[in-house]
Amino acid sequence: MSPVDDLLGRLSAAGLTLATAESLTGGLLAGSLTSVPGASRVFLGGVVAYATDVKQSVLGVPASLLERHGAVSGECAEAMATGVRELLGASFGISTTGVAGPDEQEGRPVGTVWVGVAGATGATSRLLALPGGRDEVREATCRAAVSLLDGILGREDQGVG
Amino acid sequence: MSPVDDLLGRLSAAGLTLATAESLTGGLLAGSLTSVPGASRVFLGGVVAYATDVKQSVLGVPASLLERHGAVSGECAEAMATGVRELLGASFGISTTGVAGPDEQEGRPVGTVWVGVAGATGATSRLLALPGGRDEVREATCRAAVSLLDGILGREDQGVG
Repeated sequence: MSPVDDLLGRLSAAGLTLATAESLTGGLLAGSLTSVPGASRVFLGGVVAYATDVKQSVLGVPASLLERHGAVSGECAEAMATGVRELLGASFGISTTGVAGPDEQEGRPVGTVWVGVAGATGATSRLLALPGGRDEVREATCRAAVSLLDGILGREDQGVG
Repeated sequence: MSPVDDLLGRLSAAGLTLATAESLTGGLLAGSLTSVPGASRVFLGGVVAYATDVKQSVLGVPASLLERHGAVSGECAEAMATGVRELLGASFGISTTGVAGPDEQEGRPVGTVWVGVAGATGATSRLLALPGGRDEVREATCRAAVSLLDGILGREDQGVG
């Protein structure tokens, strides 16, 4: 069973739902979740916030946050995850933001990526420094976002989260 | 040059922008657009409206339309494309809705798909009856959505649209 299958199965068994907010992955994360038949029991939908304006206007990321920290930041990843969770009424929001390349962005090198998760108790994020080109960075980011939520669910199972 | 590269190049040259509203493709259409370096000059972002509620709450598809025509309909495809175009302030919205399988939906067989395009002058849609399994249906739908907009741009180039 793939990590995506496993995550969707765990969420489904717990009656939990999921939404995505994507920047550099541009829809690939949602696409990987919906490749699984029956994903609709868990996955409500998502927002691809490719342009910075969309992060503000649709996901509600504050302009002041973007000015202070930039779009490639843990703060932005957490605000995106929180925003899509609220917009779609999901149990969890997961997010991606970073530099897929070929060019650097905001002075950050290609492969600088943040993934975020928001749930009922707050939001968290993780910084990645990914090797490879555009396709490899985008695919590794999707796996990291799934893994971040998977780890959080694991801690909650053990009463630590 | 792939059809996606070609479409993005034509839109970029004309100073036009694009947004996506996806149901059965679940992010794959946005993912294919953003696989092209420099897509951000044209592609603003999109909404994956996998759950029917999201079609209403985020894209503004009227409940009465969904009750009368269902989510697998040209009317829904056009309303999704119109909704995402307005939400993101894009020149064009393109949309997908249909039955990827493995089960039929709303009495429609697997492979029944509508793609839609909305622009400044209104919206249009196209019905497809696609062969194959879930992956094939989703991938063919992405190609058909790109092709629908490409055809509309072609007619506008010739002063017919």
